[in-house]
Amino acid sequence: MNRRVIARMVGRILCLEAVLMLPAIIVAAVYHEGRSAVSFGISIFLILAVGLPCALIKIEDRRFYAKEGFAAVGLTWLMLSAFGALPFFFSGVLPNYIDCFFETVSGFTTTGASVIANVEALPNSLIYWRSFTQWLGGMGVLVFILAFATLTTKNSGESLHLYRAESSGVKASKLVPRMNRNAKILYSIYIVLSAVLFIMLLFGRVSVFDALNITFTTAATGGFGIRLDSMESFSAYTQWVVAIGMFLFSINFNMFYLLLIKNFKRIFKSEELRVYIIIVLASILLITINIASSFETMSEAIRAATFQVTSIMSTTGYYSSDFDLWPQFSRTILFLLMFIGGCAGSTAGGAKVIRIMMVFKSAKKTVSKAINPNSVRLLYLDGERVANETEASVNGYMIVYTFILALGVLFVSLNGFDLVTTITSVVTCLNNVGPGLGLVGPTMNFGFFSYFSKIILSVIMLIGRLEIFPIMVLFSPDMFRRWRNRNSLKIIRENLGDKNGDI
Amino acid sequence: MNRRVIARMVGRILCLEAVLMLPAIIVAAVYHEGRSAVSFGISIFLILAVGLPCALIKIEDRRFYAKEGFAAVGLTWLMLSAFGALPFFFSGVLPNYIDCFFETVSGFTTTGASVIANVEALPNSLIYWRSFTQWLGGMGVLVFILAFATLTTKNSGESLHLYRAESSGVKASKLVPRMNRNAKILYSIYIVLSAVLFIMLLFGRVSVFDALNITFTTAATGGFGIRLDSMESFSAYTQWVVAIGMFLFSINFNMFYLLLIKNFKRIFKSEELRVYIIIVLASILLITINIASSFETMSEAIRAATFQVTSIMSTTGYYSSDFDLWPQFSRTILFLLMFIGGCAGSTAGGAKVIRIMMVFKSAKKTVSKAINPNSVRLLYLDGERVANETEASVNGYMIVYTFILALGVLFVSLNGFDLVTTITSVVTCLNNVGPGLGLVGPTMNFGFFSYFSKIILSVIMLIGRLEIFPIMVLFSPDMFRRWRNRNSLKIIRENLGDKNGDI
Repeated sequence: MNRRVIARMVGRILCLEAVLMLPAIIVAAVYHEGRSAVSFGISIFLILAVGLPCALIKIEDRRFYAKEGFAAVGLTWLMLSAFGALPFFFSGVLPNYIDCFFETVSGFTTTGASVIANVEALPNSLIYWRSFTQWLGGMGVLVFILAFATLTTKNSGESLHLYRAESSGVKASKLVPRMNRNAKILYSIYIVLSAVLFIMLLFGRVSVFDALNITFTTAATGGFGIRLDSMESFSAYTQWVVAIGMFLFSINFNMFYLLLIKNFKRIFKSEELRVYIIIVLASILLITINIASSFETMSEAIRAATFQVTSIMSTTGYYSSDFDLWPQFSRTILFLLMFIGGCAGSTAGGAKVIRIMMVFKSAKKTVSKAINPNSVRLLYLDGERVANETEASVNGYMIVYTFILALGVLFVSLNGFDLVTTITSVVTCLNNVGPGLGLVGPTMNFGFFSYFSKIILSVIMLIGRLEIFPIMVLFSPDMFRRWRNRNSLKIIRENLGDKNGDI
Repeated sequence: MNRRVIARMVGRILCLEAVLMLPAIIVAAVYHEGRSAVSFGISIFLILAVGLPCALIKIEDRRFYAKEGFAAVGLTWLMLSAFGALPFFFSGVLPNYIDCFFETVSGFTTTGASVIANVEALPNSLIYWRSFTQWLGGMGVLVFILAFATLTTKNSGESLHLYRAESSGVKASKLVPRMNRNAKILYSIYIVLSAVLFIMLLFGRVSVFDALNITFTTAATGGFGIRLDSMESFSAYTQWVVAIGMFLFSINFNMFYLLLIKNFKRIFKSEELRVYIIIVLASILLITINIASSFETMSEAIRAATFQVTSIMSTTGYYSSDFDLWPQFSRTILFLLMFIGGCAGSTAGGAKVIRIMMVFKSAKKTVSKAINPNSVRLLYLDGERVANETEASVNGYMIVYTFILALGVLFVSLNGFDLVTTITSVVTCLNNVGPGLGLVGPTMNFGFFSYFSKIILSVIMLIGRLEIFPIMVLFSPDMFRRWRNRNSLKIIRENLGDKNGDI
């Protein structure tokens, strides 16, 4: 493990975080929030005190492979959260640092689970920072670096491994050959779509500050609320805008690029998009029928169902009515949607539609193979054959995911809350949704958990957002071992054969 | 699909069921239960009326492959349950036939979930029949045929496919080359161990009738209670005997054979046995610590923990104290143990320890492959390499299992009960455990579910007991299609290459 390279990278990103914290001071100034301004100032100072020396580390050994990529990404997100939590701590909003850390991890991972009981009492600058962490986390922090900071352009292997390690989704598919250009395209789409959403919200007579926060948290499919009742008290127009926004931001961003270059054929060929739309529509239909009787008009029921389905499936986590009071069938649909999540290559969390599809196809294959032992069945996706290794690695991913879920449930159960609370809190954190059911239902918050549970849930949010491996590698013995030369041959071989690592 | 062969097989097994129902009439006579005796008589008549004509079907086409094996097994279990339910119906104990069917499926699949609120009010002959269905289902009904009835000896392909389709566990490993002898060995072990258990229970001054029932339901890891409080009011001695019994019957029966032929080396080499023992001991330890404060003496806490862990992990489902009142951590451990189940090749249900182990090893491999893309990792079990196809098929199995679980939860949620009840009722049925948590907790029963849910749960019990494929094949279009000659070449090829189907 080339730890110097990793340390330098983390250092540089911390410096960037300090810069990105500056607007929060402006917000604090606008709203005359003296204490918050100071707390941001102290935080920036501390971040630079740690970040700058690391950023200036001299590098001789430039080796940077998959493992370094994962470690850099895992460590970066951990550090960003650890330091991003400081303003909450210094402002005295959350007296215990673990609460601050939980809240910031929930921000960067776009989960939206909160320990803050009364968000309306927060200073505006902290609300802004909280929403902004989600917007940053939505597209990926390192993708941001690749897109704009050109810190790493000298080493294309470095960009590739970073991009792969951070990008959510099964396939870190390349739109264009160069990684940095790729990242730039994705971030441009993200910014443009966010801007459109912002304007649409302003049309609904939402205040500029509210619109900005809602844009940040919707675009990231994060879901940090700015009101006590999440989106319930906003107008029907605003709810529809946000619902459509959540839906769009949970579609693979490649689709927007394809739209831009007018390659409609490839959009229509996308099985994932088709299946995603089908699941969303079917869920809305079933839930609307199920809840219709408790709403005054049909259109209200449709709006509530649409809002909640897009919110949960995009793993945003907003609510427009307390779905924990809905009939069990609707609650179960929402619970199952949490596991699926949005499309790969979007800002959404969850296992991703494409993985569920591949795993489903693999399951069908298993059944027919058991019944007709020697028949040959192949897996197809978007009309192309899926390699056996890809199938195995997706199945493997889902199994690791299940083990982490089980382990999480076991740990959190030590806290002694009922099974629904225990299970859904882990599910909602692992899939970066936000609210669960029971004590972590939409109108509740995570404040009552023990600090041990909060740490576990924070790790689970990071595991979910970074799709397991970057966090796992931080616990691997390699992380704590000196870079050994006799390994280099093996690692070079790994790197050459790395085309298999595309998945 | 060679449906004539399947129909004849099902017919013959129905005839056997009629014969096996005769002792229940004797029990009815002993206890002067006139109405029950009559209801058994009518049932036997009806079973023979359907079974005999089928059993006498003339067969010209003797083709019998994997698919026929699965279909025969699936249909047999369905029919056995459908007809085995008749005595409950005719005796008037359960006025609705669906309840009778649920109870009998729960019996044959050794689940032990009951719709009967007051089991102590049941006529003894029905209690006997209920327990006996579990004992029959425990080792497998078709294995029974293979062992004793020699109906099928002429066609070794037939026995092989039947055996594979019914035998629980990943590997239908052969102790000796001939299937029928194999089945005979297994059934002999089953009978001898049952006899030992029976005698041990008599030593604890349990009445002969009670001891017989407890033996049937313990040996099968079924868990139908004969008292309102399951095993709670039995003596400590009896509870220990039953706990040890549940543990032994959930070990791979091959181990007992190896013990018999003094091949201790292979017993020690069994990773599954080792892991099983470790999980059992670790769970007992953790739960004992967790519940100790609510018991008067330490030995009581140890006994309660041991009993419950062996009961749940062996998927028996007895209880010696209401574990739904235990702390959440203990309840969560028990909930997770339900998924694991016992060892392959035992009477226990669940996913089986060996599958969980293989899936865990596969998960470890996935993680290291992600981090070091080109490293070569191999899977070993009992010191031998596991083929990639085996790994894929076990992973595939677990994924199909998860989909069935999700679908089951969705269907049962229509019933509108809370999430814990909904989830644990499906989990407990799919893994053939019996009790769940919440409304289906140990002291409760399944009577309150809608008939739709009861049918769904019955199918889920059968899917769980027969390890998915035999029930799935019943829904495949092939089942309803004429046997086509142009398929035979393909099917013969399948059969020749069938050695891959070993897993």
